[in-house]
Amino acid sequence: RKMLPIQTVTLIPGDGIGPEISTAVMKIFEAAKAPIQWEERNVTAIKGPGGRWMIPPEAKESMDKNKIGLKGPLKTPIAAGHPSMNLLLRKTFDLYANVRPCVSIEGYKTPYTDVDLVTIRENTEGEYSGIEHLIVDGVVQSIKLITEEASRRIAEYAFEYARNNQRTSVTAVHKANIMRMSDGLFLRKCREVAENYKDVKFTEMYLDTVCLNMVQDPSQFDVLVMPNLYGDILSDLCAGLIGGLGVTPSGNIGAHGVAIFESVHGTAPDIAGKDLANPTALLLSAVMMLRHMGLHGHAKKIETACFDTIREKKVLTKDLGGNSKCSEFTADICRRVQDMD
Amino acid sequence: RKMLPIQTVTLIPGDGIGPEISTAVMKIFEAAKAPIQWEERNVTAIKGPGGRWMIPPEAKESMDKNKIGLKGPLKTPIAAGHPSMNLLLRKTFDLYANVRPCVSIEGYKTPYTDVDLVTIRENTEGEYSGIEHLIVDGVVQSIKLITEEASRRIAEYAFEYARNNQRTSVTAVHKANIMRMSDGLFLRKCREVAENYKDVKFTEMYLDTVCLNMVQDPSQFDVLVMPNLYGDILSDLCAGLIGGLGVTPSGNIGAHGVAIFESVHGTAPDIAGKDLANPTALLLSAVMMLRHMGLHGHAKKIETACFDTIREKKVLTKDLGGNSKCSEFTADICRRVQDMD
Ligand SMILES: CC(C)[C@H](C(=O)O)[C@@H](O)C(=O)O
Ligand SMILES: CC(C)[C@H](C(=O)O)[C@@H](O)C(=O)O
Repeated sequence: RKMLPIQTVTLIPGDGIGPEISTAVMKIFEAAKAPIQWEERNVTAIKGPGGRWMIPPEAKESMDKNKIGLKGPLKTPIAAGHPSMNLLLRKTFDLYANVRPCVSIEGYKTPYTDVDLVTIRENTEGEYSGIEHLIVDGVVQSIKLITEEASRRIAEYAFEYARNNQRTSVTAVHKANIMRMSDGLFLRKCREVAENYKDVKFTEMYLDTVCLNMVQDPSQFDVLVMPNLYGDILSDLCAGLIGGLGVTPSGNIGAHGVAIFESVHGTAPDIAGKDLANPTALLLSAVMMLRHMGLHGHAKKIETACFDTIREKKVLTKDLGGNSKCSEFTADICRRVQDMD
Repeated sequence: RKMLPIQTVTLIPGDGIGPEISTAVMKIFEAAKAPIQWEERNVTAIKGPGGRWMIPPEAKESMDKNKIGLKGPLKTPIAAGHPSMNLLLRKTFDLYANVRPCVSIEGYKTPYTDVDLVTIRENTEGEYSGIEHLIVDGVVQSIKLITEEASRRIAEYAFEYARNNQRTSVTAVHKANIMRMSDGLFLRKCREVAENYKDVKFTEMYLDTVCLNMVQDPSQFDVLVMPNLYGDILSDLCAGLIGGLGVTPSGNIGAHGVAIFESVHGTAPDIAGKDLANPTALLLSAVMMLRHMGLHGHAKKIETACFDTIREKKVLTKDLGGNSKCSEFTADICRRVQDMD
């Protein structure tokens, strides 16, 4: 077996349960002998020159150097004018594609058993432009900004993703019947890009229809691509179908291999520091990261171990229906990973 | 038993299966001796002075006089620049509240058994403003317009609805973490109005969180109030939970008692004219209409008969899992209604 070069990843443990679940992931990676070394950074925003909020330079430099990050949950800022750190990170590193695979987990019961889809969300513009005005007293407008470039880029990402991940169809999700120009532009770019991927089936569907069909039969969907806000909504909806944010991974992908993988659940301050947290979402995000880095063997091993532990139902954290501690759940996955060698 | 005055309702049968399901509703109303007389009108849009699309005057006058309408599905216009008739109707009569009760139907199996909620959607502004611009080549903006007045009005509607329908809580659905000014204004108005309804519990929740929680446990929700687009999405999602648009009623409510009740499914051209359509959504919309008119006894009778027919599973249309014709399903409901006398 050839020695793999060790790659460095920026680790942002985050707040609340973030440090515990990060430790869990590090332990499992060690057990799996993943050729990863961690560079831990804190991303509490600081005020830069001109009063603009920014990522601390040590974190920025680490990401610029390593290109790849793994991130736990960050607490929602309370200071007025303080940006969401999640949004600031996406913006700082131009992470234009938010990718969330949703696959039913055997042994973790929900009303749905055959979910196997991926939401691909445009992550930089749309309803998240941040441009808003007070027109006159009592009348406010928010601007949804859609560009040709960002629409083409995310459509291309979606089709490339489909092709490279043995997926057969891409559905563009839109409301171009209402927002004829903006969603119209987004949809047109999807159609154009689809022309270059004749091996992937392309369909278009209204967002409301997708939501309706999704809760009736999610198995009909494969890859879905959509503007920012629709992705925010649909990705959470789909996470709900397979068990919630505690078990769903997420990746924010930029150009030139830059990417941050993250668990999208909250910081769970009520159970923080009590060894009760479920590290699954961060672990599966780390598995996505391994695949992104081409480390498919390690990814498969860790993923299999995690799903085996869940399927066997003997060592589960509370939210998964068991009464084990985070460290016990972690140890069970480590044991399985080691047994595979 | 005192004689009730006969009220006239504007009936817009609509396209495709619209006429058949309208006939079904009329038959059931007759069997139930509902004191309603119908004034049938067609709403195919015409071009008015200045080239603006408008509702034909006979339909407009009928609605102006009767104030209350019942509407089947309308086909989506194909001519460029032709407005959606549904939107044009909402606009023409300032039907500012879209109300969709979603209640699990006994005997009609879905993954959820305990849904009992109502979505209340602001129906006049928000993302549906229709204001869009091309900024420069390849850059487009759509404007989401939120006003204090429309926000207060819909919030008041929601709380009044809760109070008058023995509901205990109202949840404002928003993304004020992202659209701080527009959704912020909407949310502020909801909070203000909530102050005047201390008997109704008020909560606020992000749209993405609502979607996630909704598919995990819809029973936690009661009345939900939200801006236009969010309502479009959530109402369809919730319809999906209880069996789809074929069984969910809808009402568009304006000021001074003006209202149009409608089935929100499509025209189903493939089965039109074949006596195969399911009239349930239009019938339950007509039941909402009866309640709106204060005819609670007739409403209850028809609703009970419809649910009894579905629960008994002997005479069901194809989409409900049976193989009866629309006319047979209708006759079964008529028989039950008559048996109740
Ligand atoms: C934290 C919040 C700003 C964010 C969003 O709205 O995009 C979150 O819901 C997400 O999906 O990552
Ligand atoms: C027909 C369409 C314009 C409409 C909407 O988007 O509002 C429909 O989806 C609805 O929910 O009534």
